[in-house]
Amino acid sequence: MLAFLNGKFLPEAEAVVPVNDRGFMLGDGLFETMRVANGKAFRLTAHLERLARGAEFLKIHLPFDLKEIQKFMALLIEKNRLPEAVLRLTLTRGSGGRGYSAKNCGSPTLVMTLHRLPPADPGELRPWSLITSSHKISAGDRLANIKTSSKILNVLARAEAEERGADEALLLDSNGTIVETAGGNIFWIDRDAVGTVLTELSGLPGITRAVVMEICRTLGLAMNQRVITPEQLRQMEGVFITQSALGIIPVATFDGQPVPPSPRVRLIANAYDQLLQQECF
Amino acid sequence: MLAFLNGKFLPEAEAVVPVNDRGFMLGDGLFETMRVANGKAFRLTAHLERLARGAEFLKIHLPFDLKEIQKFMALLIEKNRLPEAVLRLTLTRGSGGRGYSAKNCGSPTLVMTLHRLPPADPGELRPWSLITSSHKISAGDRLANIKTSSKILNVLARAEAEERGADEALLLDSNGTIVETAGGNIFWIDRDAVGTVLTELSGLPGITRAVVMEICRTLGLAMNQRVITPEQLRQMEGVFITQSALGIIPVATFDGQPVPPSPRVRLIANAYDQLLQQECF
Repeated sequence: MLAFLNGKFLPEAEAVVPVNDRGFMLGDGLFETMRVANGKAFRLTAHLERLARGAEFLKIHLPFDLKEIQKFMALLIEKNRLPEAVLRLTLTRGSGGRGYSAKNCGSPTLVMTLHRLPPADPGELRPWSLITSSHKISAGDRLANIKTSSKILNVLARAEAEERGADEALLLDSNGTIVETAGGNIFWIDRDAVGTVLTELSGLPGITRAVVMEICRTLGLAMNQRVITPEQLRQMEGVFITQSALGIIPVATFDGQPVPPSPRVRLIANAYDQLLQQECF
Repeated sequence: MLAFLNGKFLPEAEAVVPVNDRGFMLGDGLFETMRVANGKAFRLTAHLERLARGAEFLKIHLPFDLKEIQKFMALLIEKNRLPEAVLRLTLTRGSGGRGYSAKNCGSPTLVMTLHRLPPADPGELRPWSLITSSHKISAGDRLANIKTSSKILNVLARAEAEERGADEALLLDSNGTIVETAGGNIFWIDRDAVGTVLTELSGLPGITRAVVMEICRTLGLAMNQRVITPEQLRQMEGVFITQSALGIIPVATFDGQPVPPSPRVRLIANAYDQLLQQECF
């Protein structure tokens, strides 16, 4: 597989960064994960806009403009002959000195790598088991809206889920209300409405979360954004997770209890697959 | 300058890691920063113990035992002929697949780099100007005790200080009480006592913080650990910051107001320099 690194296409094994790259030393960077279908990144503009917002927040200068990045991305997919894939883009502040100060940094580092899709069709994903993580997100943290590469909390929450035999972990803030999962956003069905966490409290503004809200409007499904605790989520049916790599992932169990299924989840997952086809083919 | 990378000594420019190193992708690692004097790392055992505790918490297997790391460290200092320096040690989970799961990772990555001391004698550091950061640490976050390489919050807090013409940023938790600074721990003089943040609330358990507490016991200075807000800190004199690279750094101004100096700070800084000489020479 070829990787993209700072304007060049290299065999993945040769794509290396100096040990003084601030991404490696301090998690001083950003990333985006995109679903590639038919050689095109789904919702590319939304991902690139989020990247540009993050770069502005972190004051990292994008080494290429978004149009150029888009061209490199298309080339990477083409060169690897992998039209169905997941693409990860990483942007870091580049090489720098020891310590936190971002003064005197070199040029930013831009990496893109392509990854095979999990064996099954994403639309047919095995439902996940979800547990509540013991790790907590800082309530109202401004950084929660930025997809930085300082992701140790998410790594540990996912590891905690796996240790407990589960697939994914639900993250609460320090007030005990639900924010997101280690790798996605959370939805549920509450009587007739599709529920999700209030945008202001929902952590990272997920691109797939926005797609689901769009689908609900198109299908005329009522939406209900709210503050919710794990106890309240336990009363809901049709819980599902959204993320860019895998799309819509139904939740089978939450903290060991089965989640009652809802036909609405299949409806939304089908609409998502249709949209993906429509926009990428 | 030579760097140490996974058992080898390489010119720094050749010390590179794959772009799929989890340290680079997700800040999935740990680090330690040590003051090297007379070719010896000051309080080495404390640093290595904290590293080992962190590695256990993150479930990263140390690729060498602590005795071997110590030998490599001595060799690095010797080979570079830099007996007065700052040494950074970075340990990451190594290469891994896309996504948060730490399953199927390769061998951990261990890096050590040596850095020149700032021009002035650390004992004679220019006092710093300190501001209160707008970034918040999650109150009671278990991860706050682990020196992970997911340090974007500290990077942004330091950048905020520099933008406001200051040297360092004070970090509060979401309850508004002081935790630490972007790169160290905070102390002050309160009448006759040396004050610092309660251990349970003080974020990272600083090695230099522990040294200062030891010095206070030796000198017979009263200690006062407490919960403190920026408003309360403003009433104190002799505010100073502790960190492993630079030692004791007096604070000249806090949020633009001059901090009344205290002779106790010089007393503690001198005792720190003596201890460093005593243990390393």
